[in-house]
Amino acid sequence: MAAAAGEEVPNKRVVLKRYVTGFPSEDDMEVVTATARLAVPPGSTAMVVKNLYVSCDPYMRGRMTKHEWPSYVPDFVLGEVLVNFGVSRVIASGHPDFKVGDLVWGMTGWEEYTLVPKPESFFKIHHPEFPLSYYTGVLGMPGLTAWAGFFDVGKPKKGDYVFVSAASGAVGQLVGQLAKLTGCYVVGSAGSDEKVNLLKTKFGFDEAFNYKKEQDLDAALTRYFPEGIDIYFENVGGPTLEAVLSNMRNHGRIPVCGMISQYNLEQPEGVHNLFQIVAKRLRMEGFMVFDYFSEYYKFEEEMAGYLKEGKITYVEDIAEGLERAPGALIGLYSGRNVGKQLVAVARE
Amino acid sequence: MAAAAGEEVPNKRVVLKRYVTGFPSEDDMEVVTATARLAVPPGSTAMVVKNLYVSCDPYMRGRMTKHEWPSYVPDFVLGEVLVNFGVSRVIASGHPDFKVGDLVWGMTGWEEYTLVPKPESFFKIHHPEFPLSYYTGVLGMPGLTAWAGFFDVGKPKKGDYVFVSAASGAVGQLVGQLAKLTGCYVVGSAGSDEKVNLLKTKFGFDEAFNYKKEQDLDAALTRYFPEGIDIYFENVGGPTLEAVLSNMRNHGRIPVCGMISQYNLEQPEGVHNLFQIVAKRLRMEGFMVFDYFSEYYKFEEEMAGYLKEGKITYVEDIAEGLERAPGALIGLYSGRNVGKQLVAVARE
Repeated sequence: MAAAAGEEVPNKRVVLKRYVTGFPSEDDMEVVTATARLAVPPGSTAMVVKNLYVSCDPYMRGRMTKHEWPSYVPDFVLGEVLVNFGVSRVIASGHPDFKVGDLVWGMTGWEEYTLVPKPESFFKIHHPEFPLSYYTGVLGMPGLTAWAGFFDVGKPKKGDYVFVSAASGAVGQLVGQLAKLTGCYVVGSAGSDEKVNLLKTKFGFDEAFNYKKEQDLDAALTRYFPEGIDIYFENVGGPTLEAVLSNMRNHGRIPVCGMISQYNLEQPEGVHNLFQIVAKRLRMEGFMVFDYFSEYYKFEEEMAGYLKEGKITYVEDIAEGLERAPGALIGLYSGRNVGKQLVAVARE
Repeated sequence: MAAAAGEEVPNKRVVLKRYVTGFPSEDDMEVVTATARLAVPPGSTAMVVKNLYVSCDPYMRGRMTKHEWPSYVPDFVLGEVLVNFGVSRVIASGHPDFKVGDLVWGMTGWEEYTLVPKPESFFKIHHPEFPLSYYTGVLGMPGLTAWAGFFDVGKPKKGDYVFVSAASGAVGQLVGQLAKLTGCYVVGSAGSDEKVNLLKTKFGFDEAFNYKKEQDLDAALTRYFPEGIDIYFENVGGPTLEAVLSNMRNHGRIPVCGMISQYNLEQPEGVHNLFQIVAKRLRMEGFMVFDYFSEYYKFEEEMAGYLKEGKITYVEDIAEGLERAPGALIGLYSGRNVGKQLVAVARE
């Protein structure tokens, strides 16, 4: 039964139970039931949304640790609901630009209903003909991340040799396909044979390999890139980065999107061959999707076009229900997900 | 007595006696006397030069090791003369663009006379009113390095906070002064109180410190840069880079010129906090002066102007005679030099 505006209803939510050091576990989170009022205070420009899908993204690990100094994104608050990007329907609004029934995506809670104080931070969904879950991925934050990082930071040219780590993940699968659309030669690495198979048969990577089966990653990269690597789309960090640096070509570029291999280590691993940055005149450049939000609607149209034309394909891994959200999030760090991990909160 | 063209004369030279692992010593080189013919073969476009000054540069360490794979600059050859940038006078030439008496700088031998097969790789000296030794430094390769690295890679803006390591060296002293000319706030680090004093009193750095006296470099940088660092001109690598990464500001830039602290280590030190590249959206970019040689004459005029106007000052450390060249080169790696290290081969 749909909840009417103004009503007070139960509100299932995922809260952070304790701050994490090392590898997170499901027990660090807890699914509890609070209440939500499905109305906005009179005169307010807030909105209330019903959450349909919430996204599980690797960067969330940083928010589960208490930092002494402010981090680039705020730490989660103990006992409070986790927040991340999600797809929602507006069910009450005091904001002139958002009306009841609108489909939106933005930073919401891991809960059934969320009061959004600043609706202007949300994006409207212009292509509801696609599965709405796509707005946590290919048409949302990870899609914009892949697009901005590959094109704006990577500056690809036709014929470039491109290597993507975590290549079957939300961002990696899209980077590889955008690289193919650009006329690049693309190799991806992933952590299971099933994922490697996806890369080759579904996403059109030229080659792919299971990094867990490689004794010597440096040698593997030399085998896959006898001419060297022009662009390395960095998702993992640590020893992979070190092996890649030895295999880069002169004037290569490394858009640095994330370093998931390091997020759960109390002491991150060292990278020893940074002198390659001089010797090969490399550019390593970090970026954040937030800096590209002003280009989102342009991106949305471009990516929607690729999807319609069948030029981009997309694989997601959907956990059903908020009860499964803690496990889905943690699975990212052991690579349990196949494709973009998200949680379906409600299917309507 | 000046040697006449065509004559065969003794030719003192510094040769590499053995390939180096770890810290180099004077014994790795040897000063020997060969002979040189002061003429070019008939029909050749080669030239013979008399070397006046040769430069000691940190990057030479890489050429003293035998590499399994081709390095970015060729390894020195055992028993052969060391080569590096130097200032020379043409004493015989078959090349239409170079005539006897021309003052030039370019890649020459650590010897009295050098046969240059490709004179077109040399630059003409347009400002002999300065000490000719300046063409191994402020008006030569290190000057162009500082200028290109700071302006083209660093992309400074007025008001930027700039940190320079190895700041009293050939490149560092110029980067700091170019940064001041650009309206930046500049702090330099060096390895002795004498050098720190130079930075503050002669080169106009806003602040400077002796890194050997700092227990905690991270804390020192936080003290000197409470607002963080916009540009780090990287000359040293290793733990300094790690401390700097923690103190960079969002969208900071790190032109990577060299990593002298790592050159003599058999296993380079690891840098553990590269995730800062993502968190702060940093750009780390290696560069090489060779890529900027086409801009040299433009640079030469600009820098000559600064020198004439007293806007740039310059300190060099001159070893007299090729006998002292091995010691001068090795001194770079323990920081014995104060200012730009070079060797005077002949004062005429």
